[in-house]
Amino acid sequence: QNYQKDFLHFQEIFLTSSSNYTISSYLRELTQHPHIAGTQSSLETVEYVHKHFKDLNFETHTVNFEALLSYPVHSSLSLHFSNGTSKELSLTELGQLGKVVVPFHAYSPSGKTMAKMVFVNYGRIEDYNKLIDLGVNVSGCVVITRRGEVLSRAGIVERAAENGAVALLMYTEGGDGKTTRFNDGVERGTVMKGLGDPLSPGWGGIEGGEKLGVKDNQVMKRFPKIPSMPISVENAEMILEGLEGPKVPDEWKVTLKSKVGRVGPGPTLVNFTHQEEKKEATIHNVFAVIKGWEEPDRYVLLGNHRDAWTYGAVDPNSGTAALLDIARRYALLMRYGWVPRRTIILCSWDAEEFGMVGSTEWVEQNLVNLGSKAVTYLNVDCAVQGPGFFARATPQLDNLIIDVTKKIKDPDSEDMEVYQTWFARNSGIDIQRLGGVDSDYASFLQHAGVPSIDLYYGKDFPVYHTAFDSFDWMTTYGDPLFRRHVTVSGIWGLLALHLADDLILPFDYSAYATKLQDYAKTLENLLGSDLDLRPITSAIQEFTIAAKEVVSEAKELREQITSDDLLIMKRRSLNDKLMLAERGFLDPEGLQGREWFKHLVYGPPEDDESKLVIFPGIADAISRATRMPKEQEGKSAIQHEIWKVARAFRRAATALKGELF
Amino acid sequence: QNYQKDFLHFQEIFLTSSSNYTISSYLRELTQHPHIAGTQSSLETVEYVHKHFKDLNFETHTVNFEALLSYPVHSSLSLHFSNGTSKELSLTELGQLGKVVVPFHAYSPSGKTMAKMVFVNYGRIEDYNKLIDLGVNVSGCVVITRRGEVLSRAGIVERAAENGAVALLMYTEGGDGKTTRFNDGVERGTVMKGLGDPLSPGWGGIEGGEKLGVKDNQVMKRFPKIPSMPISVENAEMILEGLEGPKVPDEWKVTLKSKVGRVGPGPTLVNFTHQEEKKEATIHNVFAVIKGWEEPDRYVLLGNHRDAWTYGAVDPNSGTAALLDIARRYALLMRYGWVPRRTIILCSWDAEEFGMVGSTEWVEQNLVNLGSKAVTYLNVDCAVQGPGFFARATPQLDNLIIDVTKKIKDPDSEDMEVYQTWFARNSGIDIQRLGGVDSDYASFLQHAGVPSIDLYYGKDFPVYHTAFDSFDWMTTYGDPLFRRHVTVSGIWGLLALHLADDLILPFDYSAYATKLQDYAKTLENLLGSDLDLRPITSAIQEFTIAAKEVVSEAKELREQITSDDLLIMKRRSLNDKLMLAERGFLDPEGLQGREWFKHLVYGPPEDDESKLVIFPGIADAISRATRMPKEQEGKSAIQHEIWKVARAFRRAATALKGELF
Ligand SMILES: [Ca+2]
Ligand SMILES: [Ca+2]
Ligand SMILES: [Zn+2]
Ligand SMILES: [Zn+2]
Ligand SMILES: [Zn+2]
Ligand SMILES: [Zn+2]
Repeated sequence: QNYQKDFLHFQEIFLTSSSNYTISSYLRELTQHPHIAGTQSSLETVEYVHKHFKDLNFETHTVNFEALLSYPVHSSLSLHFSNGTSKELSLTELGQLGKVVVPFHAYSPSGKTMAKMVFVNYGRIEDYNKLIDLGVNVSGCVVITRRGEVLSRAGIVERAAENGAVALLMYTEGGDGKTTRFNDGVERGTVMKGLGDPLSPGWGGIEGGEKLGVKDNQVMKRFPKIPSMPISVENAEMILEGLEGPKVPDEWKVTLKSKVGRVGPGPTLVNFTHQEEKKEATIHNVFAVIKGWEEPDRYVLLGNHRDAWTYGAVDPNSGTAALLDIARRYALLMRYGWVPRRTIILCSWDAEEFGMVGSTEWVEQNLVNLGSKAVTYLNVDCAVQGPGFFARATPQLDNLIIDVTKKIKDPDSEDMEVYQTWFARNSGIDIQRLGGVDSDYASFLQHAGVPSIDLYYGKDFPVYHTAFDSFDWMTTYGDPLFRRHVTVSGIWGLLALHLADDLILPFDYSAYATKLQDYAKTLENLLGSDLDLRPITSAIQEFTIAAKEVVSEAKELREQITSDDLLIMKRRSLNDKLMLAERGFLDPEGLQGREWFKHLVYGPPEDDESKLVIFPGIADAISRATRMPKEQEGKSAIQHEIWKVARAFRRAATALKGELF
Repeated sequence: QNYQKDFLHFQEIFLTSSSNYTISSYLRELTQHPHIAGTQSSLETVEYVHKHFKDLNFETHTVNFEALLSYPVHSSLSLHFSNGTSKELSLTELGQLGKVVVPFHAYSPSGKTMAKMVFVNYGRIEDYNKLIDLGVNVSGCVVITRRGEVLSRAGIVERAAENGAVALLMYTEGGDGKTTRFNDGVERGTVMKGLGDPLSPGWGGIEGGEKLGVKDNQVMKRFPKIPSMPISVENAEMILEGLEGPKVPDEWKVTLKSKVGRVGPGPTLVNFTHQEEKKEATIHNVFAVIKGWEEPDRYVLLGNHRDAWTYGAVDPNSGTAALLDIARRYALLMRYGWVPRRTIILCSWDAEEFGMVGSTEWVEQNLVNLGSKAVTYLNVDCAVQGPGFFARATPQLDNLIIDVTKKIKDPDSEDMEVYQTWFARNSGIDIQRLGGVDSDYASFLQHAGVPSIDLYYGKDFPVYHTAFDSFDWMTTYGDPLFRRHVTVSGIWGLLALHLADDLILPFDYSAYATKLQDYAKTLENLLGSDLDLRPITSAIQEFTIAAKEVVSEAKELREQITSDDLLIMKRRSLNDKLMLAERGFLDPEGLQGREWFKHLVYGPPEDDESKLVIFPGIADAISRATRMPKEQEGKSAIQHEIWKVARAFRRAATALKGELF
């Protein structure tokens, strides 16, 4: 009882200790210089974060890995018109004086070519098919594409290479096709497939550890086969205006704002040069640890990456500033006598931009301990991009998120809680899922099976991965008063307090069961009656029953707040079940051909264009089936993956029940 | 303090409650009829064991699986001499009236052939090479081989098939080549590769679950390509006497007791017929559960198989009788007020003889719970084969076994403890390891990473897998007074009491570290300076340090026997580390090409003739390297496996440390 009262008291202190002043000062410091991973310039932020944790008297660690990163050495683009004139395109962003890295695609191979250009819209399969209909062959050409919402950069480049293109230029309009880009910013980004250091797939890339050769097949298959480069909207328009050939299809124009009319090829030629350097670099993850008093061997992890393509005021250091402020507030709580029941770990990742490298290496390195002891991973990347709260999570955490947003003030509406405006905007609660690989939660959830959350405010900010993602932009547009920052750090920090301190873990697996039922319907609609989905539906039934039982067991134990020996052990045992149930969704042997991905519910399908965005194993089997000569063979392969998912549901149910019989 | 005293008191009751009378009566009941798995006749033993547990008031369960088993339908052998006469060989064992199953090789394909015969000694590669030297080609012939100690039945048949043989006859002399077989007993056995139901590789073969088709490649590759049959020594001698051709090499004669002089082929022809039936059968595992009072979610498992090729008095029901007597003695303890701290589970497996099917299906089905909660698996198969104590274990359990044998009376020497005679016989303590796949510990250790023990008295008993493995043989030769049975059940039951009741798990990882150091030396001697073993030696160092720290942490906590909230949790946390460290040796993705095998230290090499019998991944890479055209390629592959083992050691060290930093 005492303890419960204390806990409410500490929550109160946490909530009243927010400060937009401190957060903004952290962000200003972090964004003084560009700090791309693996370079000298990034060390300042390592030291800044480390010192911050240290000064607050936290147990602090810097854990290094060696990883193969990629940097641009020299790039150029010039247009050669049919009238014999030519024009060199500027690749740097206006107003920048060489401090930020030139816009590039990390891991794009070096290459040099002089060729005609073709506009391929978003670079999807349907786009290439349309071009074939128009009689346009991209083989031997440089393709120019815009980045849409479906394909990853790597996916765009891969399709271009498959269609015979020799190089690729990519530009980004407003994320929704309506907003404009900010100035002439150019979107940097990685084109590597998979996660983590390419030289140490599946294991921690520690110094002195095993490293594959750069020419190893396993390594090479993660890099694109053709070179690519991001360009500005201005450059893109100039190029597109010079194209002749068939007219741009009407359906492409709907969202295309340039005044361009034809797809090419040519007649203008482009002289494309890109020279990259791959380099084994040292990367630095920084940690603060608050050891739990009762269960030091249970971990609640808060993570955010620190490395940025440029100044990183939004991406990722709005999150870093929030993390540092949570550290400050937790330190305050500790001065009032608080120690968390479970261990809290604040994680500052490096080299996320290159492919979640810092977090992935650390997860790989610590898989055994994380697999058996990590309670939840709470990720925040671009904490503040604009207005509006967004959350993604594994479903057993949905209700906790909802509860917590009811306790935090909305930064943009007087006298409202986040919950209310969030609900109003979506006409309900809309929590997305974590099947993507766009931030550091991916290794925790998809490789290690740790229940995860990802939070952010605003989306599709126009300076994404450009030189204009700066403190200036944040104070002018993103969050002038840093009230959204305060909100995110409040939600993030309070979530972690519950996860670390609640007697019984605030996990609701009935919500998970409901989601699985939805997914089964999605699958049924997609596959029709061709395949037998009963293994899945009956496994979901089992999971649902187990979830219900655990909910009532939890209710019972929550009410017994005194402690005797047996009760302590009963709580631990229940909490272990709650923690480990998510691991049941893992298949230790991984997805066929992409064994690193272990989670059978959440993970990216091999094909970005897959209609199915859950159950990556089933999604892959569906894609492969379309390439199989015998229909029956494809069906059996899909059915086999359906069985695997059903068994994963049963494993999770068994883990939840926690009983052998 | 009270608790410790109580515990010693209960130990005392356990030790004084032994009874050879009860054990012998259990064995008599179990061995009244043959009880091969999957048949009606086996149901009596299911009921007998179930009723025994039930009558003792234990929570009792029967868990069924569906598995593809194999039975003989019709077999015949006749010799056709060059003089035109012929002779039908009797395939049944004399003195048996058709009650026991005819001697056969389970999963041998059906086949029919008339061909010349060649004697191939043990059927090793070197034996076939010798025959080539002698100018003898076995292609198209039926080979006759004796069973040695190196090759498994499946390995013998595989080599014969690779050399072009069309069928195989196998006989067994005394295990050491010196003792004789008992009467005309013939050794039955399985020739399937791998463990568990072939139709559900890697998952529990429950009714209504996924089953592969019998013609699936994954299934077919587990069965031999040519038919085979076991024969008696008498029949073997008759066949061998009729062979002409080159003389039997001198080195083969050393251990060959038959008066046979030539290897063949022919001139005698053999008419070989074998017709098998593969059948999906229901198999029954029976369990008794004693729920722990403090840690019901930690399992100590005692297991023994129940199915037998014939009467099974040694194999396996001497172990079953011991298990049933432990149940009786535990029930007695409970009447005196004992409840174990952790849950104890008595397991009676079915279909072990077909390839560890019952235990494997159950382990596969319950992998998530066993992986996170099983403390130790204690196996006893052929409990009593003759005189002399034998133990195999994962090394953290060595010291516990030694301690326990000091408390149990030797059955064959007045006033001695087992420890003394055991020590004297080996001039030291000789605990073997569990890299084989000859009993039900294999799935627990090699698939799930559960620390394991296997115990038995005597070895190489002459009625192994014959019709003469009967209660009669046991009372006449094996253990007339059942004193050895009492000894095994005493050691087995007391080991389990310690594992279930000790405040701190009695695991000593320093002993494991010492073993790993030995293994590193073995590897160094085998591989020379060609490969870099430093990853392994430095990982062992890390493991050794972690083990030492845990030993002193355990010492400290053992001394604090009072209980407060924090101490309870500290113990649980330490015990979790001790339990989970063994899991670190698993590679979740498994051995290349044999993904079911996850343990990188203990497991069977793919090649039975491998010189290396630890580190199956490295052993396999060495075998594959000999078949690679480029030497360097082979070396890199071995080096990669060395790295994997080193990482497994580090994982185990990390799990033991239990710290992320
Ligand atoms: Ca790695
Ligand atoms: Ca199976
Ligand atoms: Zn980011
Ligand atoms: Zn980014
Ligand atoms: Zn046996
Ligand atoms: Zn046997």
